[in-house]
Amino acid sequence: MSKREEEVIKSYFDPTLTDRERAIFEGGVALGSIYHQFLGVPIIKDDEILKALENAIEKTMSVQPYREKIEVKIIRDKVKSEKKNQYDYESLKGAHLDIKVVVKYGKYRVTARMKRMEEIDYNLMCIEKIEKLSEVI
Amino acid sequence: MSKREEEVIKSYFDPTLTDRERAIFEGGVALGSIYHQFLGVPIIKDDEILKALENAIEKTMSVQPYREKIEVKIIRDKVKSEKKNQYDYESLKGAHLDIKVVVKYGKYRVTARMKRMEEIDYNLMCIEKIEKLSEVI
Amino acid sequence: MSKREEEVIKSYFDPTLTDRERAIFEGGVALGSIYHQFLGVPIIKDDEILKALENAIEKTMSVQPYREKIEVKIIRDKVKSEKKNQYDYESLKGAHLDIKVVVKYGKYRVTARMKRMEEIDYNLMCIEKIEKLSEVI
Amino acid sequence: MSKREEEVIKSYFDPTLTDRERAIFEGGVALGSIYHQFLGVPIIKDDEILKALENAIEKTMSVQPYREKIEVKIIRDKVKSEKKNQYDYESLKGAHLDIKVVVKYGKYRVTARMKRMEEIDYNLMCIEKIEKLSEVI
Repeated sequence: MSKREEEVIKSYFDPTLTDRERAIFEGGVALGSIYHQFLGVPIIKDDEILKALENAIEKTMSVQPYREKIEVKIIRDKVKSEKKNQYDYESLKGAHLDIKVVVKYGKYRVTARMKRMEEIDYNLMCIEKIEKLSEVI
Repeated sequence: MSKREEEVIKSYFDPTLTDRERAIFEGGVALGSIYHQFLGVPIIKDDEILKALENAIEKTMSVQPYREKIEVKIIRDKVKSEKKNQYDYESLKGAHLDIKVVVKYGKYRVTARMKRMEEIDYNLMCIEKIEKLSEVI
Repeated sequence: MSKREEEVIKSYFDPTLTDRERAIFEGGVALGSIYHQFLGVPIIKDDEILKALENAIEKTMSVQPYREKIEVKIIRDKVKSEKKNQYDYESLKGAHLDIKVVVKYGKYRVTARMKRMEEIDYNLMCIEKIEKLSEVI
Repeated sequence: MSKREEEVIKSYFDPTLTDRERAIFEGGVALGSIYHQFLGVPIIKDDEILKALENAIEKTMSVQPYREKIEVKIIRDKVKSEKKNQYDYESLKGAHLDIKVVVKYGKYRVTARMKRMEEIDYNLMCIEKIEKLSEVI
């Protein structure tokens, strides 16, 4: 991307937005995108199938900008169906998922996470960790 | 699934529906489901990423009832983006896809297909082949 | 669409496929499409919001070919959340939905339906009714 | 939501995250969610249909936490199809959309935006404006 294009992109953002905040924003975009893209995919409790899905989510969603790492776990214990008959399968839902996205923008690395909070029966999306890179290395 | 449950399911269908027609119906459900579930997944022209996505679609969508085989091809030549910069990626769309679903119900095997018809710039979903199994084997 | 284009489309289908079967196929495509497109939309038990969503699903999905009528009902009693706090909402899922799609192809009108079968805890998609139009009118 | 629950939620976030940053994060979640939930919905250039879809997106996505206002515009000029024949329709894609989400968290109001940047042929998601509420009122 040329310097000119980068400047055009930057001009769309609020000028007070810091690099740390931009990384936090991208963490939010990543979680919202993953969740709403893959909800509803048919699954059963079969390790080969679930690994294939985790792998595809991690690899494809990593092509969005500034993603450093994505880890998706479909919690095996939450998947009940085992294909005992034709109709025995489930649709992927929030309760099945534990998602970790690491975003890097400028000098900041941000870890965004989505997981089930059993206490309030909710799939919480949160910013778990913010690191300044000069401090990390 | 118990005999009782199978009868309950059958009772919801029009009584004139044949096994051949049921297989055709399932072929339609499969194509509509795959297309609308996975449209919008971020992709680039990278064989490892595209194979991971093809594999996940094939494996997960095969858990729906009566699916015998699913083949998904993301046409490499239609994917333009190569991640030259952070913003260089695409969203999966119909024009990228060639999908074949083989459904088996009773004595019938039906091949449903979705592919781009360049002639009318449309992602046609169709029933490509209908086989009666006694004739096949 | 020109005669030529219609012939091209027809050439992709198995030549033994009847108009009745084509209508059944389109019913399947419609149900699979609606289900996997809209699963995961955030909802609460608020009539204005739920009507807006039902209306949008009906109107947009009707633009696919050969759809004569689409009726979507989000079962109010199945929606638990009432926005008592920021986190009190749900994602649209199969158990919330009753969908009826009427497809017309050639002389055939087919009613496809998706609704919860409480008996087997499954969102059954089925062909509820097949009518030959000369018999109807 | 009880004080106890709010504290549990807060405990999942990085302790250095400010209210301003939390609002920015929620703006990102909102844009990612809307985009990946609704991509692929069938549309034609028909004001009634497009208004129904815009309205449903605005109303449903507003039930997620801390959303103050959502405005969705499907750019009429970008929609080419007018249902001249059965196959004349499109799938909703980024190029059709202009989305504005206003999020309020604590004393901060953040405006997140997704729109087509023609300069780089990309659907940019950005933080357009950050306001501190005491300054606003």
